[in-house]
Amino acid sequence: MTFELDKKNILGKVDKSQKGKIDTGIKEICDLINNNKNYYTTSSCSGRIVLLEADSNKKNKAKWLFVSHESTDFESISKKLDSKSEVWLRQEGAILHICCKDLESAEKLINLVKSIGFKRAGMISINKRFVVEIISSEHLCAPVIKKGKKIVTDEYFSVLISEANKKIRKNKEKLEHLKTNLETFK
Amino acid sequence: MTFELDKKNILGKVDKSQKGKIDTGIKEICDLINNNKNYYTTSSCSGRIVLLEADSNKKNKAKWLFVSHESTDFESISKKLDSKSEVWLRQEGAILHICCKDLESAEKLINLVKSIGFKRAGMISINKRFVVEIISSEHLCAPVIKKGKKIVTDEYFSVLISEANKKIRKNKEKLEHLKTNLETFK
Repeated sequence: MTFELDKKNILGKVDKSQKGKIDTGIKEICDLINNNKNYYTTSSCSGRIVLLEADSNKKNKAKWLFVSHESTDFESISKKLDSKSEVWLRQEGAILHICCKDLESAEKLINLVKSIGFKRAGMISINKRFVVEIISSEHLCAPVIKKGKKIVTDEYFSVLISEANKKIRKNKEKLEHLKTNLETFK
Repeated sequence: MTFELDKKNILGKVDKSQKGKIDTGIKEICDLINNNKNYYTTSSCSGRIVLLEADSNKKNKAKWLFVSHESTDFESISKKLDSKSEVWLRQEGAILHICCKDLESAEKLINLVKSIGFKRAGMISINKRFVVEIISSEHLCAPVIKKGKKIVTDEYFSVLISEANKKIRKNKEKLEHLKTNLETFK
């Protein structure tokens, strides 16, 4: 009963993420997974476009200046483009951590998501719990401010945003595909 | 004896990768892994800086215009920056696929690499073989040519190369650390 008890406990807990709730873009997928007796989600992100400020004086300290889980536009993101240190524009694909009842369930899930185009899927924990990580591989990652100075022209920054939007849309299509497949996944 | 036989067969095969041989930067790590009775490598890359040409008319068709597994410089890479379609500059971290004798060996390996800073490590195949994938997470990914036109200034392109070099050096440090740890890994 440990798996069932853990599932009940985890799903009953308060969300500790920075956002404090599941992104709407991935909520239905999490629900489909959690309604399956062999699985439950421990964390998720539907994919995002972010401005990340890295303070080079403080290692491992990074701050989000902007976050969007949807397509965005030049004006919205430019307003947040202000820093005295270093800023990167990043687009990151969806990520899901799913606890599986047993090895067989983990294998079935990995096979499903790989077959529909999620290249990065693997079991990241084997000992106490069987946890599968699924990552959508679209990404973009480019510096936009260095030493407090904007290093991209407006024109190039627009291209970066347009490319990030394209990738976030591709990521959404893959999530839709995953959702459809999960509806009949036993 | 299946694992031992597979190991012998795989390690005896001709390298089918585009390069046709193991990158020198990761050769010693592969040797350390292959000398351990519980593991063998099926593929590897020490990390790289590439110019990738994506032909938007031909989906899934991408061509490398430039590849370096070491730091590079503006002149070497600029010489290859020529295309009538779309080109991206990418820096990608090291990747290793390792076949493990059993679940216990896979778990031990995942725990080792996670403890020394490889965030992306998981078992990607569970059924016929236990295959662990390890990826070093440094990356950079930015468009440099669109519709045959260079969209980055020389100054910004220099920054991209310098950042890619920094990341490839960090990736090398992690590989050195992995090598040291593998020397005493039983």
